[in-house]
Amino acid sequence: MIRIGIYGYGNLGRGVELAIQQNPDTELFGVFTRRDPATVKTLTGAPVYSVQHVTDYTADMDVMIICGGSASDLPVMTPMLAKLFNVVDSFDTHARVPEHFANVDIAAFRSGHTAIISAGWDPGLFSLARLYMNTVLPDGKDYTFWGRGVSQGHSDAIRRIPGVKDARQYTVPVEAALESVRKGENPELTTRQKHTRECYVVAEEGADKALIEKLIKEMPNYFADYDTTVTFITEEEMKRDHSELPHGGQVIRCGSTADGKHKHVMEFSLKLDSNPEFTASVLVACARAVVRMNSRQVYGCKTLFDVPPADLSSMDPEEMRKTLL
Amino acid sequence: MIRIGIYGYGNLGRGVELAIQQNPDTELFGVFTRRDPATVKTLTGAPVYSVQHVTDYTADMDVMIICGGSASDLPVMTPMLAKLFNVVDSFDTHARVPEHFANVDIAAFRSGHTAIISAGWDPGLFSLARLYMNTVLPDGKDYTFWGRGVSQGHSDAIRRIPGVKDARQYTVPVEAALESVRKGENPELTTRQKHTRECYVVAEEGADKALIEKLIKEMPNYFADYDTTVTFITEEEMKRDHSELPHGGQVIRCGSTADGKHKHVMEFSLKLDSNPEFTASVLVACARAVVRMNSRQVYGCKTLFDVPPADLSSMDPEEMRKTLL
Repeated sequence: MIRIGIYGYGNLGRGVELAIQQNPDTELFGVFTRRDPATVKTLTGAPVYSVQHVTDYTADMDVMIICGGSASDLPVMTPMLAKLFNVVDSFDTHARVPEHFANVDIAAFRSGHTAIISAGWDPGLFSLARLYMNTVLPDGKDYTFWGRGVSQGHSDAIRRIPGVKDARQYTVPVEAALESVRKGENPELTTRQKHTRECYVVAEEGADKALIEKLIKEMPNYFADYDTTVTFITEEEMKRDHSELPHGGQVIRCGSTADGKHKHVMEFSLKLDSNPEFTASVLVACARAVVRMNSRQVYGCKTLFDVPPADLSSMDPEEMRKTLL
Repeated sequence: MIRIGIYGYGNLGRGVELAIQQNPDTELFGVFTRRDPATVKTLTGAPVYSVQHVTDYTADMDVMIICGGSASDLPVMTPMLAKLFNVVDSFDTHARVPEHFANVDIAAFRSGHTAIISAGWDPGLFSLARLYMNTVLPDGKDYTFWGRGVSQGHSDAIRRIPGVKDARQYTVPVEAALESVRKGENPELTTRQKHTRECYVVAEEGADKALIEKLIKEMPNYFADYDTTVTFITEEEMKRDHSELPHGGQVIRCGSTADGKHKHVMEFSLKLDSNPEFTASVLVACARAVVRMNSRQVYGCKTLFDVPPADLSSMDPEEMRKTLL
């Protein structure tokens, strides 16, 4: 049995709790929270502990899955916890991966632990798709599209505008761009040509909707480079139509062999009803791999690039070759 | 530089020769053939040797890519050559994988070599897709569709019918079945409901076409369980329209989280202009991995399930994390 701890109990932490139930070789030791444990009720009745007491439980868990945000939580939490546990995180700030990797690597290596960072679907399964595709078709070009799905960061950005009560932003791939890529046309695509942004906004009573719309559409980085639509809805509509967190996307690589004579298109796509629950399912598979790699004395920081696929699965190797190969 | 040998010089061997040119960290030592080497001309001018002299060259190659057929060549060749070299093959007789694996494992392990068997796209990349998908979504069901593409085995079966001069058989997935799977309907599909078979036949002059069509459609294992169409064409049409070897397909898994509340669809698909050249590209990536694993003293028989993805790539790990993660 692989004994797992969950560090941080938001959407992702709850997803991990559910995913553990789907994997009979794993069990949940407990949830660690920064809140008062007495105020936190888990979905499955698993015990809740304060993060302040995490050092008391190092012998009780084989691996800790860290469910914090990439902006300010994980850069601190993962190196700190990697000194105490084998760990898995879903760090997704691409630009800061080298720094995070180095910090976690030192912490894990020195203490004889194993860490997998940046697990999930992007980074994660999409990264694997890009790697396999680049390796098999060195002469080619790949594209990643995201959506249709809720971007939490963009939704939050809208919510910070004065007069906005609630907001949900969907990232949507441009169908024409997708089709062109799939046909192997290797188009050069600008940011605007790849994705559009759909915003659903509940305005406070009396708010200046025209101004809100203008502020959203002109927001640098988040919306200014995209074709953005803003739709004002009621609180009831928000609750009824936009309470889920779907997402997905695709990685497509077009390449050629025989000096360009033969073209090949590879595609990996996901259509997810729940982004956090799917991400959590990847984290739990990585937790299994981390424990196995640690038992083989493979220490330090890893990504899915370093993990033999078989280590992710609970299946016996012989059975795996028989049924999946 | 990874020095590669090619053992067997048909469509696949030629594909490997071309793929080596696309991978700057690999070079071709030479081609080994059962034919008289003087009668074999390689695409790139690479030297040709008789298989009878292969033992003279064990120091000249880091890995041998074995390009023989699964029915009778590879079960003999791979265990034999694994005593002399690190090897890669594309063994694809699913039912006989356990036996082949065991034979190659003993030969490679005892001699300190590393082997990867069953590399290519199915088995190979599709196997990896099935493994990753099963691991991430334990509660679900997956489907593999093949085509539209040329099946060499089925084309050969038609050619053995008296009165048939040439034949090409395309395996075609049933669009309605694909759509149902993609929608997450988890249908139960019979063989007939998944694929159809399109046959293009050049008949000898005076041959009984109605009989040929009947013999094809009623051929057990190959065609009897499928909706099969037979189209008679001229030799010129065969040459003009059916001289390429395209193939492809998709692996789709639909699964759920949160007790079935949320559905997720994962799909990996390939659309290949040249089946042998694409397969060969996978074999060359595996050749790189085999040499690296051998240098880490990982001996014996492996499949892609055992290969850390990073070992397949020529990219530096840091660069990989920066650009692909």
